[in-house]
Amino acid sequence: MDLELKSRAKAFGGELRFYRHPSKVTGSDMSFGIFFPPREARMVMLFLSGLTCTEENFMIKAHALAMAAEEGVILVTPDTSPRGTDLPGEHESWDVGSGAGFYLDAQRSPWDQHYRMESYVTKELPSLLHQHWQLEPPFALSGHSMGGHGALTLGIKHPELFRSLSAFAPIVAPSQVPWGQKAFRWYLGEDEINWASHDACELVVARGYERSILIDQGDADTALQTQLKPELFQKACQKAGVELNFRLQRGYDHGYFFVSTFINDHLNFHLKAFI
Amino acid sequence: MDLELKSRAKAFGGELRFYRHPSKVTGSDMSFGIFFPPREARMVMLFLSGLTCTEENFMIKAHALAMAAEEGVILVTPDTSPRGTDLPGEHESWDVGSGAGFYLDAQRSPWDQHYRMESYVTKELPSLLHQHWQLEPPFALSGHSMGGHGALTLGIKHPELFRSLSAFAPIVAPSQVPWGQKAFRWYLGEDEINWASHDACELVVARGYERSILIDQGDADTALQTQLKPELFQKACQKAGVELNFRLQRGYDHGYFFVSTFINDHLNFHLKAFI
Repeated sequence: MDLELKSRAKAFGGELRFYRHPSKVTGSDMSFGIFFPPREARMVMLFLSGLTCTEENFMIKAHALAMAAEEGVILVTPDTSPRGTDLPGEHESWDVGSGAGFYLDAQRSPWDQHYRMESYVTKELPSLLHQHWQLEPPFALSGHSMGGHGALTLGIKHPELFRSLSAFAPIVAPSQVPWGQKAFRWYLGEDEINWASHDACELVVARGYERSILIDQGDADTALQTQLKPELFQKACQKAGVELNFRLQRGYDHGYFFVSTFINDHLNFHLKAFI
Repeated sequence: MDLELKSRAKAFGGELRFYRHPSKVTGSDMSFGIFFPPREARMVMLFLSGLTCTEENFMIKAHALAMAAEEGVILVTPDTSPRGTDLPGEHESWDVGSGAGFYLDAQRSPWDQHYRMESYVTKELPSLLHQHWQLEPPFALSGHSMGGHGALTLGIKHPELFRSLSAFAPIVAPSQVPWGQKAFRWYLGEDEINWASHDACELVVARGYERSILIDQGDADTALQTQLKPELFQKACQKAGVELNFRLQRGYDHGYFFVSTFINDHLNFHLKAFI
């Protein structure tokens, strides 16, 4: 698979690159960012971004590169959806379609032809990382908002691929909140029986999780009560006997200044799993 | 003067705010960002941004907030030009007009009515900082590219206002490079006798500077040979007997990943002047 280098920049002694490539899985172009630290890497972390984001947001806004450079962490940030397919209605809403792939494989036409972000993140992207840089799983996995949903669901479903798991302000119960319900109807259809395998609350009860999960959530987040409902995941983890370190951060909202404030804590959390 | 709070966000335990206000100096709206650390402040640093930037770029991209929070630094980022005046041709070029105020008071009509960024940064903005938050000079001053030009020229001309001075990839000799010559003709007119008081190389020779200046410059910066020419400022400082710590940083380009890599060094440099 051919990678086209879109840009590169030296940062914190390492190098940040953005690539585009034709994806077999999505039948479209896909893009991702990758940061190489200036020393031998001891961990590869995938970070899944939220609604409207691209592969750039985390790299520019999360302030993760300084510690990644110092501690030897390769950061990988996939885009949040296929691009350039121009399906009917694909670009009309900010919370479904382009920029809103929800890290699942769609089952409804025409979305099932391209919106296959679960397969992209768990199969094609790892394959690219292996092919081009000899990087091997397990990886660390984190994400923000819709990307927090992606991290939790993919992390719980693929423990062999992802050794450690954290999230910032994740959508934990998409089946029960408007963002998730809209996306699931759009990608998976009305039959809610197909939703459970993409819902972190359902998944953690059904499958369990052997390691501790870290979640940070701001209490000034305007989506907290309507879209995020972290208490549902707390209850689900309790029911499943899964260790959850849930931190409600006073005064923080949903934005990247919140993520940047606590990203080093998350990197430290993940690094402990890779000693 | 009334400040309109455009947005606020908690970050690194402190608070980041963006304000808009009617400016008497520019006869337009002006905007600025201000970050308050969670502890008592021991320094106020103004950071002047480059071409096309607004008051947001530095706050989002420079990764300065973590150290500012920890060390007690208030960061202030003015916008790079007046907005909303819609003068003829104001928005047609990215290197003059809106987003490109060049931190000087224009002398040509109609620019002289609004483009008075030197007076805004050295008079009205300090007055606002005093009026609303009882902040007093001297401040620390830094900037990037066009903002590096602003920092060097205003810092050399107003040593009572700015106690310490640094820059990232600054335009040091605007009278001798295309970006500066275009802007100076646009704002000041063809008569080059009016240019010298806005040219860091001319100013440092004419006025001297009593303290050490820190400049970082990437050697992979595509503007290095044509627009920046740091060797001209090195020679001028040598001629003027001014201490310059010029660091050529191998492999770095002109962007904010370069700034973010070295911003903590600059904060440390400035903090030493405020012990």
